[in-house]
Amino acid sequence: MVAEREQEGKIDEVGFTQSPSFPEGASRYELGAQSLSQLDENQVENLQTTFKDISPDLARLVIEYGFADIFSRPGLDSQHREMATIAALTAMGTALAQLKFHIKAALNIGVSQIEIREIMILMSVYCGFPAAINGTLALKEVMSESSSS
Amino acid sequence: MVAEREQEGKIDEVGFTQSPSFPEGASRYELGAQSLSQLDENQVENLQTTFKDISPDLARLVIEYGFADIFSRPGLDSQHREMATIAALTAMGTALAQLKFHIKAALNIGVSQIEIREIMILMSVYCGFPAAINGTLALKEVMSESSSS
Amino acid sequence: MVAEREQEGKIDEVGFTQSPSFPEGASRYELGAQSLSQLDENQVENLQTTFKDISPDLARLVIEYGFADIFSRPGLDSQHREMATIAALTAMGTALAQLKFHIKAALNIGVSQIEIREIMILMSVYCGFPAAINGTLALKEVMSESSSS
Amino acid sequence: MVAEREQEGKIDEVGFTQSPSFPEGASRYELGAQSLSQLDENQVENLQTTFKDISPDLARLVIEYGFADIFSRPGLDSQHREMATIAALTAMGTALAQLKFHIKAALNIGVSQIEIREIMILMSVYCGFPAAINGTLALKEVMSESSSS
Amino acid sequence: MVAEREQEGKIDEVGFTQSPSFPEGASRYELGAQSLSQLDENQVENLQTTFKDISPDLARLVIEYGFADIFSRPGLDSQHREMATIAALTAMGTALAQLKFHIKAALNIGVSQIEIREIMILMSVYCGFPAAINGTLALKEVMSESSSS
Amino acid sequence: MVAEREQEGKIDEVGFTQSPSFPEGASRYELGAQSLSQLDENQVENLQTTFKDISPDLARLVIEYGFADIFSRPGLDSQHREMATIAALTAMGTALAQLKFHIKAALNIGVSQIEIREIMILMSVYCGFPAAINGTLALKEVMSESSSS
Repeated sequence: MVAEREQEGKIDEVGFTQSPSFPEGASRYELGAQSLSQLDENQVENLQTTFKDISPDLARLVIEYGFADIFSRPGLDSQHREMATIAALTAMGTALAQLKFHIKAALNIGVSQIEIREIMILMSVYCGFPAAINGTLALKEVMSESSSS
Repeated sequence: MVAEREQEGKIDEVGFTQSPSFPEGASRYELGAQSLSQLDENQVENLQTTFKDISPDLARLVIEYGFADIFSRPGLDSQHREMATIAALTAMGTALAQLKFHIKAALNIGVSQIEIREIMILMSVYCGFPAAINGTLALKEVMSESSSS
Repeated sequence: MVAEREQEGKIDEVGFTQSPSFPEGASRYELGAQSLSQLDENQVENLQTTFKDISPDLARLVIEYGFADIFSRPGLDSQHREMATIAALTAMGTALAQLKFHIKAALNIGVSQIEIREIMILMSVYCGFPAAINGTLALKEVMSESSSS
Repeated sequence: MVAEREQEGKIDEVGFTQSPSFPEGASRYELGAQSLSQLDENQVENLQTTFKDISPDLARLVIEYGFADIFSRPGLDSQHREMATIAALTAMGTALAQLKFHIKAALNIGVSQIEIREIMILMSVYCGFPAAINGTLALKEVMSESSSS
Repeated sequence: MVAEREQEGKIDEVGFTQSPSFPEGASRYELGAQSLSQLDENQVENLQTTFKDISPDLARLVIEYGFADIFSRPGLDSQHREMATIAALTAMGTALAQLKFHIKAALNIGVSQIEIREIMILMSVYCGFPAAINGTLALKEVMSESSSS
Repeated sequence: MVAEREQEGKIDEVGFTQSPSFPEGASRYELGAQSLSQLDENQVENLQTTFKDISPDLARLVIEYGFADIFSRPGLDSQHREMATIAALTAMGTALAQLKFHIKAALNIGVSQIEIREIMILMSVYCGFPAAINGTLALKEVMSESSSS
């Protein structure tokens, strides 16, 4: 991973600051990558691939801020984090890909399909039926993708 | 209630579970009022008073739909419902009074202050810092109102 | 259920109007299904089919809450309900499928294409041009789908 | 019109083009002011006063675009325009002052209080209860302000 | 102008007032078309084609209001207008086609790819990572479309 | 500042991870505090005071993520960052306090009042007049607060 960081360092030619390098132990990036991999083992690589030519630092920041600084925090367990995230993304209605990712992630760490279905139904009260329907359709897509793979 | 829920389990012809069948004599309204009162014992009366001259049916529908039809459903426990609701309302950013109500409600049914604080911090990842800050300030107001009463 | 409805009537002491009283024998679900069918005769079945394996209760709640409890209410005629719905969904910008459904529904019950076009233009004032444009493109899709069928 | 454009070209002290002055008959501004005055006879002056030191052109553009270009258009009657506007602003949840203005305007041109109440209840289906509640509270404030004046 | 208004008064076949025709020099429409063409030389025609059968006035209003009345104003240069527009559309998350258009427009008038990338990263702070990611993916699509053409 | 970090370290008793400590040079927190202070010299202390009892880590994360990781990045100058931020917050409409802060910050680093006024007018095109009006009123409040102090 350190080697990868150094490789990323080459991107710095276009003018970005490097991620802080921590001389001993796990770096912020490594800690974030580890947390994110618990939700989906391919997602670190997916992020790197998707953004490597357009905005590699964005992928790094998702991992460092989203998953090292925040997701790894104590005080709220991972399942509750995913439930809250699913509710928020369903309420927003502007982040379908992210919602599907977090539905999969939630299922991967033990949130049940029924709990997710119920969060979507609950959202009808606070965000209205279109949000609840679109959230449920995201769940349906995730379920049918996973059953067909 | 378990027995009732099992009755609900009897999927009807068109494939839907039945509406919850009320405890003898209890209407949808009464069931909702009872659920809502577990979150805040004054809220049914608050709703009735607030809306009695302008839209009494809206108060009734909040209670019947929000708390009889939905909140009382099995499949997601009350604490998780409140966590998801807090996340959604923080993400929306347009419902401060409702957010404060559900923060109080969550605290009343055993969600910890730290869990709510962490949901707000988590929201910085998905909705940005202004949402996280405004959500945290709502929590702060709830805490100082409850300590001063 | 009729008996229960009558019991609910007693709540009126606190100032609520009664729930709509169903035609004899008609349940909340049947009343909702009937209302929804007036907008689009296939939509009840569409909802049942779409959600039957993932969240059948959500389809039921759309019908019971959206179309028995609310759409059937007196005080606002159906055309005005659809105009308000189209405006709201255009403003939200997160519910394209629902917007297209309600455009079709509005046309089915006598709202004119010109009125819908003008609602979209009006939305440019309150929600900006992207919302007005996306709403108008939804109208365009509805018109071309209906002319090609 | 070139002459008019050139007049507009006279950049005023704070650096903005002037409103086009139409030497004869009703200008776009006057037409807009007239339309807006039908909704609320004081609003043109309110806008001028509010924005005269900070952004006078914004007040002019509201009047010219919102009320000459758009509100005055044929194809959708004024009551329907106000109903659609109220629905959209309630859905957005970020424009309380504007919502209150349009509730007053709608009442002024013959939309009934009951119709507005019902639009708010309808919004619970599409935008959730917080939007419906906040919209109804806006209606309540308008009603109590007008009864106390 | 009364004469012009009267000309506008000639309701066209589909029932709308005509665009004001300015007999000499550049009209509001022509001025807007010129401004818009500086961002993208094909967009005036694209708008006309897209909306000609469904809402030709909407295309006209985009050009007249968006690009004659507003974009052409002094006080903020074109690059800054495009940066602000890109930020707003990324924050909204409901206007992908418009965001892609304005990314292209910004690049056309000299905003750099790096500046746009940085605006997207900045949006993670204020609107969260899903907005930043979706904005960056829009930039990626624009870049790959332009490199393949 | 190092001393403060150590003091903050005591907050860790409630269970949070520490900010990474950088053995040489400025820490992430110090770098962020320095950047933020260029926008408003009191804001670091304001954040610390506001959140010290409710969520001190949120204040730290605003500073570390928002102002060390992001604001300090090369590739987009500070004035452009503030313009983009003002546009985004105006578009969102849910972050009035943050909008006012960034208007002040923008003025402090040389964005002109006219540029901000024009950004608000521009927003009428993309987000509608209520957003433009509310943004302009925020600017008005900032101007009158600063002239009265």
